[in-house]
Amino acid sequence: MPSYKAPLRDLKFVMYEVLKADKALSAMPYYAGNETADADLMDQVMEEAARFAENELLPLNAVGDQEGCVRDAQGNVTTPTGFKAAYTKFRQAGWTGLDADPKWGGQGMPHVVNIATSEMNISANTAWSMYPGLSHGAYSALVAHGSDELQALYLPKIVSGEWTGTMCLTEPHAGTDLGIIRTKAVSNGDGSYAISGTKIFISAGEHDFTDNIIHLVLARLEGSPEGTKGISLFLVPKFLVDASGKIGERNGVVCGSLEHKMGINGNATAVLNFDGATGYLVGEINKGMNNMFTMMNAARLGTGMQGLGLGEIAYQNAVAYAKDRLQMRHEPRVTPSEKADPIISYPDVRRMLLTGRAYSEAGRAMALWLALSLDTEHHHPDEAKRKEAADLVALLTPVAKAFMTDNGFNIAVQSQQVFGGHGYIREWGMEQFVRDARIGMIYEGTNSIQALDLLGRKVLMDGGKKLQGLASQVEALVNEVADDEELQGYADQLGKAAGQIATLTMVIGQKAMQNPDEANAAAVDYLRYMGHVTYAFLWVKMAKVALDAIKAGKDKDGFYKAKLQTAKFYFDKLFPETKMLSATIKAGGESLDVDMGMFGVEKDMATA
Amino acid sequence: MPSYKAPLRDLKFVMYEVLKADKALSAMPYYAGNETADADLMDQVMEEAARFAENELLPLNAVGDQEGCVRDAQGNVTTPTGFKAAYTKFRQAGWTGLDADPKWGGQGMPHVVNIATSEMNISANTAWSMYPGLSHGAYSALVAHGSDELQALYLPKIVSGEWTGTMCLTEPHAGTDLGIIRTKAVSNGDGSYAISGTKIFISAGEHDFTDNIIHLVLARLEGSPEGTKGISLFLVPKFLVDASGKIGERNGVVCGSLEHKMGINGNATAVLNFDGATGYLVGEINKGMNNMFTMMNAARLGTGMQGLGLGEIAYQNAVAYAKDRLQMRHEPRVTPSEKADPIISYPDVRRMLLTGRAYSEAGRAMALWLALSLDTEHHHPDEAKRKEAADLVALLTPVAKAFMTDNGFNIAVQSQQVFGGHGYIREWGMEQFVRDARIGMIYEGTNSIQALDLLGRKVLMDGGKKLQGLASQVEALVNEVADDEELQGYADQLGKAAGQIATLTMVIGQKAMQNPDEANAAAVDYLRYMGHVTYAFLWVKMAKVALDAIKAGKDKDGFYKAKLQTAKFYFDKLFPETKMLSATIKAGGESLDVDMGMFGVEKDMATA
Repeated sequence: MPSYKAPLRDLKFVMYEVLKADKALSAMPYYAGNETADADLMDQVMEEAARFAENELLPLNAVGDQEGCVRDAQGNVTTPTGFKAAYTKFRQAGWTGLDADPKWGGQGMPHVVNIATSEMNISANTAWSMYPGLSHGAYSALVAHGSDELQALYLPKIVSGEWTGTMCLTEPHAGTDLGIIRTKAVSNGDGSYAISGTKIFISAGEHDFTDNIIHLVLARLEGSPEGTKGISLFLVPKFLVDASGKIGERNGVVCGSLEHKMGINGNATAVLNFDGATGYLVGEINKGMNNMFTMMNAARLGTGMQGLGLGEIAYQNAVAYAKDRLQMRHEPRVTPSEKADPIISYPDVRRMLLTGRAYSEAGRAMALWLALSLDTEHHHPDEAKRKEAADLVALLTPVAKAFMTDNGFNIAVQSQQVFGGHGYIREWGMEQFVRDARIGMIYEGTNSIQALDLLGRKVLMDGGKKLQGLASQVEALVNEVADDEELQGYADQLGKAAGQIATLTMVIGQKAMQNPDEANAAAVDYLRYMGHVTYAFLWVKMAKVALDAIKAGKDKDGFYKAKLQTAKFYFDKLFPETKMLSATIKAGGESLDVDMGMFGVEKDMATA
Repeated sequence: MPSYKAPLRDLKFVMYEVLKADKALSAMPYYAGNETADADLMDQVMEEAARFAENELLPLNAVGDQEGCVRDAQGNVTTPTGFKAAYTKFRQAGWTGLDADPKWGGQGMPHVVNIATSEMNISANTAWSMYPGLSHGAYSALVAHGSDELQALYLPKIVSGEWTGTMCLTEPHAGTDLGIIRTKAVSNGDGSYAISGTKIFISAGEHDFTDNIIHLVLARLEGSPEGTKGISLFLVPKFLVDASGKIGERNGVVCGSLEHKMGINGNATAVLNFDGATGYLVGEINKGMNNMFTMMNAARLGTGMQGLGLGEIAYQNAVAYAKDRLQMRHEPRVTPSEKADPIISYPDVRRMLLTGRAYSEAGRAMALWLALSLDTEHHHPDEAKRKEAADLVALLTPVAKAFMTDNGFNIAVQSQQVFGGHGYIREWGMEQFVRDARIGMIYEGTNSIQALDLLGRKVLMDGGKKLQGLASQVEALVNEVADDEELQGYADQLGKAAGQIATLTMVIGQKAMQNPDEANAAAVDYLRYMGHVTYAFLWVKMAKVALDAIKAGKDKDGFYKAKLQTAKFYFDKLFPETKMLSATIKAGGESLDVDMGMFGVEKDMATA
């Protein structure tokens, strides 16, 4: 069975040494007032989270995969053995409200701490982590858009974990394209609405953890305009709730079936049938899509975390196996008393391991940076700082979601490869990481959709302003390390790539003015390029901190030297992907503009 | 459920128009004498194979995945519903002996035809295709190394499919490193041996298809030297066979368990326990490894075919879905009568589809080229031609195995991505292709081992002579199309890459003389570079044929135009990976030579 040790040392390195999060948070009255910006407290929370993930969640990971969730004829769902008990411990310890507002019973901890703990939960048990994860999304939507009445009635119980929440968006014919959903809402004349329709792919959509489940549902109010401008958001509880918060009769929503999936089997992916279910409007009529989008940044970063968490645990187990497995004889011999040497002795095996390490460490830095920026966006007293943080979050969230999940999947695949044939066998657990990691690239907006969001909405429609914000930070860092002999080479590569992405943006922008398909054709490669610029920036930043620590004589255990070596690996072996991307982006969309007959499409689809 | 249409048009294009296989085979007396080098006959065989794959094997593919194989307490294995019946039809139709020697009851068809049919079987049902596939490997080993007596007793029944064969190499502690296997052989004094030990990962190791299973087993004869030079090959039948070929008592080999795997669930992956089982020496004592290697080229090409076959069917289904699924509105609208347009309208979706198409079509060309070269190696009357073909096979077989399985897996993943959330749901069948494709990168020598074989054994140890053989063919083609306006650009890129690989080979070779780790560090990137040189060569070749056909007015259905457009896509979007690989190879092994403390390894492993 796979093992897992939470990367506390690295989390603290990023949080305090690289981001100086404790200092930054102390400048925000909200956290200062809650007394939650304290490094000691943050450490305690992370250490406790590490214990919970390692001891409570990890042992249930394989069980969840094997057993899956089971639905009975009435639509009740039983989660895998141990899942409910772990959830009960989790909520009793206060984890469900970790970064929730104390006003609703939350702990008021910074989002950056919550993101750190979520990495550990995901590593240990991705499928389980999605139950509180989805609930957190519902909390955010209600905080941002719910009426006082809805907030007072539902938030305390969602924050305490007594009830959980879901997000109901997708329908069988409408995934990326929510503008064409058919679920409808009809006014009941008493302020409530009757919701009818079918929602699919609802993660944590039905389960036995709690007495009630609060669904947030996108639906079209009768008479609303077509498309995304006619969609509203409704709260639909599984059981109706009276004014005192007491659970009443069953509402008209039932789990019609559970999907059989490639992975995340421990999470119930439900088809939910709404049949005149009573729902309550959240936010304004026809603003449902906007309301969803306001919390999308947090949800997408949360999905990116699945790439990070699964990559990390896959990497850790590949290292353990590579040290243990003896095959062939390295020259010179490493364990001459044995018939063969540990496979970690071979550079190619270390190439696979270091790929996991370099991507995971940069991903962790990116995730915490964005989470701290979310804290800044929401709580900094200075409006300019809030705006700056909001711009960075807007720009880099699609990158975090897509780049981290793509990399996480690839790390899982490469880590599985280290195991040879044993990696293909279920008992070793590596193939589960691959299957579990695959979904992150698909849901919460496919990675192609993230790329279109980045290039179209965040860069081109914005005239490159947000991109310029990042470029300024890159430039400042490049200048900061310009005289540093050890870092010059990296800074040089980073500076050139930042310049190159500005050029590529112009090239694409000009082509796209003639033909919008050109942006669509370039988007995925562009996002990966942006991912590398971001990771290169963070690797230079981390290398600088590490180098300073070494110079100050603080590297007793080799932690900082390892950072420098991993930075070198990143620039030598991973960053050169930008050379390929630069070429494929420059080649443009011409080669994609093929005769559709090659796919068996009639000459003129419009006549079909 | 996934659909599948065998790519007969493309198979024939490669076979006759690109490779001119019928002409080449007619020059070989073996095939001319067997009257099997005839294009009409080859067509008939391929068309019949297509029908079998589409109608008999495809419907069993999901069944096999869901049911898997079941072992009872006695070690008997039941294969999934329908598997045995399909096998019986298969062998009754003579497919098991398609390219086997008529001397043993085979059809004497060329290997190139067999490879074409195997692609179709794999696409339709990979797990099922492995039963006859493994049997074919045992056939080859016995033909090459078995005594007259063993051949006469076993080959007719393996060729007729009455019995099947396996290859038993791996042990729990010995995968890549067969030199340390522990299975032992003791002489019985009557010409037979008693074989004892445990073999794992034995594909098709136990099943209910046939009355007998013929295991070919690597074991160490007592008193033999340590390492690979002390290993012999033995034939161990499940049931003993008398001199007349009649089945007698059960031999001392039993299936101890079946592995639970990520995929290829319809194939029984057995742990086989040999307990003094009676075995017969195949070939000379202590030449077991050599004997295995003589048939490794065919087996490795066969594994590469799994990448091709699975990539092809995943691609086909992604195309079908992309035409069918309506999401968002393309500008200009494509199906204005609908609320949304087919997702194939978007360039990024076509990017994913064309990736599958370009890699599959080049892979098909490579596979048939190598298969025809195997025919030439074995049957051409001219020794120089045989040597030339053998060199090409030796050089490119590891490339075919690794490059085709890596690409096939990536195609499966990208094709799954086209389906969005539905790609993650089992019922759609796309996730099975991903799981089934994953093993090809691991078994039959991991793709890292293929890379080391290519760079170490096939290039550096050979002084680059085999590489020069390929380079000459590249040069000739580049010169051939030098004046062709439409192909110049591609030829130019191909020529430069061929020059670059010569340079990279020298750079690595020089570094490796100082430090053997440098070859190990570069190998995987080097293999992918070589893969692109090969595919670029084949794309120029195919584009030339297509262009000539268009010029001759033969392109009625757009087949040749599609070839040219796919070639352009390949050079615009896939071939630029060489820019990345060139950089990572040049960076050398320095960044992999890290302080092992970062992985928690004690300073001096030798003392551990």
